[in-house]
Amino acid sequence: MDEVKAIFEPKSAILIGSSTLREKVGMTSPQLFKDVIYNMKKFFHGKTYIFDVDASDRSLNELPEVSELAVVMLPPEQSIFMVEKCAQIGVKAIVIITGGYKDFQREKLVKIRERFGVRILGPNTIMGVINTANGLNTTFEKGVMPKKGNIAVISQSGGVGACILDWACYYNVGISKFAFMGDKIDVDDVELLQYFGKDKQTKVICLYMEGIKNGRAFIETARKIVKEKPIIALKGGITKESAHRAKSHTASMAGTDEIFDAALRKAGIIRVENVEELMDAAVALSKQPPMRGDNIAIVSNVGGPAILAGDAVARSNLKLAALTEETKRKIESSYPGVDATNPIDMIADARADRYAKVLELVLSDKNVDGVVIINMLKSCFFEPKDAKIIPKIAKKYPNKPVVDVPAGGEDFALVYKVLGNTNIPLYNLPEKAVKALKVLRAYGKIVEKH
Amino acid sequence: MDEVKAIFEPKSAILIGSSTLREKVGMTSPQLFKDVIYNMKKFFHGKTYIFDVDASDRSLNELPEVSELAVVMLPPEQSIFMVEKCAQIGVKAIVIITGGYKDFQREKLVKIRERFGVRILGPNTIMGVINTANGLNTTFEKGVMPKKGNIAVISQSGGVGACILDWACYYNVGISKFAFMGDKIDVDDVELLQYFGKDKQTKVICLYMEGIKNGRAFIETARKIVKEKPIIALKGGITKESAHRAKSHTASMAGTDEIFDAALRKAGIIRVENVEELMDAAVALSKQPPMRGDNIAIVSNVGGPAILAGDAVARSNLKLAALTEETKRKIESSYPGVDATNPIDMIADARADRYAKVLELVLSDKNVDGVVIINMLKSCFFEPKDAKIIPKIAKKYPNKPVVDVPAGGEDFALVYKVLGNTNIPLYNLPEKAVKALKVLRAYGKIVEKH
Repeated sequence: MDEVKAIFEPKSAILIGSSTLREKVGMTSPQLFKDVIYNMKKFFHGKTYIFDVDASDRSLNELPEVSELAVVMLPPEQSIFMVEKCAQIGVKAIVIITGGYKDFQREKLVKIRERFGVRILGPNTIMGVINTANGLNTTFEKGVMPKKGNIAVISQSGGVGACILDWACYYNVGISKFAFMGDKIDVDDVELLQYFGKDKQTKVICLYMEGIKNGRAFIETARKIVKEKPIIALKGGITKESAHRAKSHTASMAGTDEIFDAALRKAGIIRVENVEELMDAAVALSKQPPMRGDNIAIVSNVGGPAILAGDAVARSNLKLAALTEETKRKIESSYPGVDATNPIDMIADARADRYAKVLELVLSDKNVDGVVIINMLKSCFFEPKDAKIIPKIAKKYPNKPVVDVPAGGEDFALVYKVLGNTNIPLYNLPEKAVKALKVLRAYGKIVEKH
Repeated sequence: MDEVKAIFEPKSAILIGSSTLREKVGMTSPQLFKDVIYNMKKFFHGKTYIFDVDASDRSLNELPEVSELAVVMLPPEQSIFMVEKCAQIGVKAIVIITGGYKDFQREKLVKIRERFGVRILGPNTIMGVINTANGLNTTFEKGVMPKKGNIAVISQSGGVGACILDWACYYNVGISKFAFMGDKIDVDDVELLQYFGKDKQTKVICLYMEGIKNGRAFIETARKIVKEKPIIALKGGITKESAHRAKSHTASMAGTDEIFDAALRKAGIIRVENVEELMDAAVALSKQPPMRGDNIAIVSNVGGPAILAGDAVARSNLKLAALTEETKRKIESSYPGVDATNPIDMIADARADRYAKVLELVLSDKNVDGVVIINMLKSCFFEPKDAKIIPKIAKKYPNKPVVDVPAGGEDFALVYKVLGNTNIPLYNLPEKAVKALKVLRAYGKIVEKH
C-alpha cells in the first residue's frame, strides 16, 4: 500500500528519458520527454529531477537518491536497465510510460520487482498518473490538467484513458486522480481500488478494463468499497476479435463477456457501455444521492422532450411516478391549462417561479423518488438565470436525486454556465438524464444490498 | 402541393400578432411577435408585411392582399378569426404558431380550410417554418438560423424541433428546411414528405413524430421517397403514459410501438432513439454512400478505443472485416510492431503518412465495406492537420463509407476545424461512429430492397 501511495503522493520524482532517442514505431521521443518535463515542472508541487540518459555530462551515479517515484520513458531494454538501477538505489515506485514490451521483457520487470520490492505501474501506461491534489502529472499532453474534483479514473488503456481525460477537461468534470495501468505487470486494479477506496479526495471510481487477472480479489475488494463509494466500469474486448486486440494491446486475457458481467454484478460495480456514459454516470454519482425507488417525475417546459424522457423511463425499466391527487390539484389550480399528469408539460412560457412551485410540489410528493427537469430555452420563454432556483429547491430534498436537461447544443452551454458548478448534473438530452437516474437507482440498490 | 409550396417558398409573407396581448399561460406575447418580426426582417429574402391586430391605426381591410403566406400568433379564437379573414382575401397558406386549441376550435379551422381551400400548418407549431434557401424563418429565436445544407426536418413537436434546431446550429449541421407540424389539422407528414421528396435542396429527411394519422398513405409515400432520399424517424410516445402526454401535447393518437415499428420498416424508414442519433444519422447519410456489406475495418492510433469500436461492431450485428493476407502483409512489412489484424492499432506515433498508407490498403481490400478511423490527439503524436489526408484517400473509394473519430472533447473540436466542412462525418466516440455505419448499412439494404 505504501508503495502504491508513492506512485501518487511522492515528495519528489525523477523523470528518466532521452533527449535524442526516437523509436521508429513507438513512444520514445525527445518531444515526449520534453513535454512530460514541462507538465511536471508546471503542475507538480514537489521537486522534479530530470535524468537524460543521453546527456553527455551525466552518469548513472548522479541519479538522485531521494526520489520516491521514477518515471521512465525509454524503449523496453533501456527502460528495464533504468528500472533496475532505480530499484537498486531505493526508489519506491516506478511508472513506465513506453510500451512495446515482449513477454520476456515483462518477466524481467517482474523479477526486478520481486528482487527489490520496488513497485511498478505499467509498462505501456502511455500517460502514467495524475493527482490533481499535488499536481503530479506524468502525461505528455502539454498543459493539460483536469480540474480538481472527486472522481478517480483507472484505465488499462492509454487511449481510452486519454479520451476520458480529454472529456473531463473539455466538459469540466472534476477529477481526483488518474491512473493508466497499461500492461499491469505489478500494480493492478485491485491495489488501485484499495488505494482509491481510502483516498479522501475520491468519492467515485471509474474503471476502464480489458481483463481481470485476480477475479476473486477484485470482486472482494470492490464489494467492500461500493458500500461507501460507487464504482463504474467500462469493459473493452467483449468479442473474440476485439479480445485479440486486447491481448496484443495490454497483454490482457479477456474472459467471456457474460462471466465479466456476472463478476461486476457480484462486485456491486455499475457497468456502462461507452466513455460518455461513464462520465455521465460519474458526474451523477458524484453530485446526487442514490435513488431509493423507481418512480421518476418529469417536469418540463416542452411537451415533446418530456414525452421522450417518459419513453426513456419505460425503456430503462423505471416508472413514471403516479403523482398524488393533491399534487396534481395544486399544480392545475395554480396553472390553468397545465395538465399535471406526469410527465408534466408546464408549457413553453414557464419561468423560474412556475419551475420553483411545481418542482417543490413534485419533490415533496411521496410517490416521487427522483426528478428529471427539462428546461429548454429555444421555443420557450425560459432564460438561463431562471435555472438558479433548481439547486435551491433540490437541496431541500437531499434524498431525492434531481437532474437537469437544457436539451440541445447552445441551450445546454448557456444553462451550464449557470448550473455547471452546482450539484445539479446537466445532460444535453432527456434520454441521458434518465440514464443518469437509472445509475443512481442502480447504486441505491447496491447500497441496500451490500 | 402548390399550397404546401406556398408555406416554404412564398414571395411575401404577412405576420399577424399583437403588440399588447399576453396569454396568462400560452405563447401569445408582444415579445414573441417582435422576435418573429426581427427574424423575418433579418433573414427573409421576400417582402414581410406586419399586421398588429391591436394597433389603433389599423383595420382589417388593410390586410395586404398580395401575400401567399400568413403567420398567425394570437390566442385560439383570435387566430381562428384572422385565419378566416386571410382565407377570404386569398392567402394560400397559413402557419399558426400558438397552441392551446380545443377540439372544437381545431374543427373550426378544418372548416375554414375546407370552405376556402386555404392550407394550414398547425396550430401549435410554436416555431413554424424555416427555409435556409430563401431565408424564411418564422421562429421567435432571435437571430437563430441554421447553416444551409441538405437535411430537412419535420417535427410534430415544437420542443423536439427546437432541440434539433439548437443542435443543428451548435454543431454546424447543414439544414435545407424545417417544418414544425404541431397539431397538424391539415398539412401533415404525408404532404411534407411529398414536398421534401421533390425539393432539390433536400437530400435527407428527418422526422420527429408522435403519431401517424393516415398510415397507409404515409407508408406508400415514404416507400417511394426512400429509393432516392433516406428518411430517418424519431418516435415519441412509446408507452401508454407518454402517449397520454402526446395526446394532450399535439392531439396525436399514438399507436402501439410495435405497430409503429413495423410500419416504419415497411416504409423503408430508419428509426433512431434520440435527437443525437437522429442528427448523427442524418450527417452520415448526407455525406457518405450507403454501405453495401457488413464488413467494417477499424484503423486507429490507439488500442483501447479501437477495441471499443470492435465491441460496438459486434453489438450492432455488423462484422469486423477479415483483411486479406496481402493487406496484412503490406501493412506489417511497412510498420514493424504493428499487428494488422482488424481492428488495426497503428500505434500512438502514427501520423498522416501512416494513416494514408494503411487507409488506402484497407479501403482497397475487397473484404472491407466501410471504415471507422480513430485518430486521437491526446496520448498520441497525431496532429489535427494530419487529418487532411482522410478525405483525400476516402474520395478514391466513393462506394465505401468512411467515418472519423477524434475521440473525446477538445480532440474532437480540434479535428472538427480541419474536417468539419469536408464529406467525412465526425463522431466524438467510437460507438457513435459504428452506429453511423450501421445506419449507412441499413440504408444500403433499403435501397437494395425498395
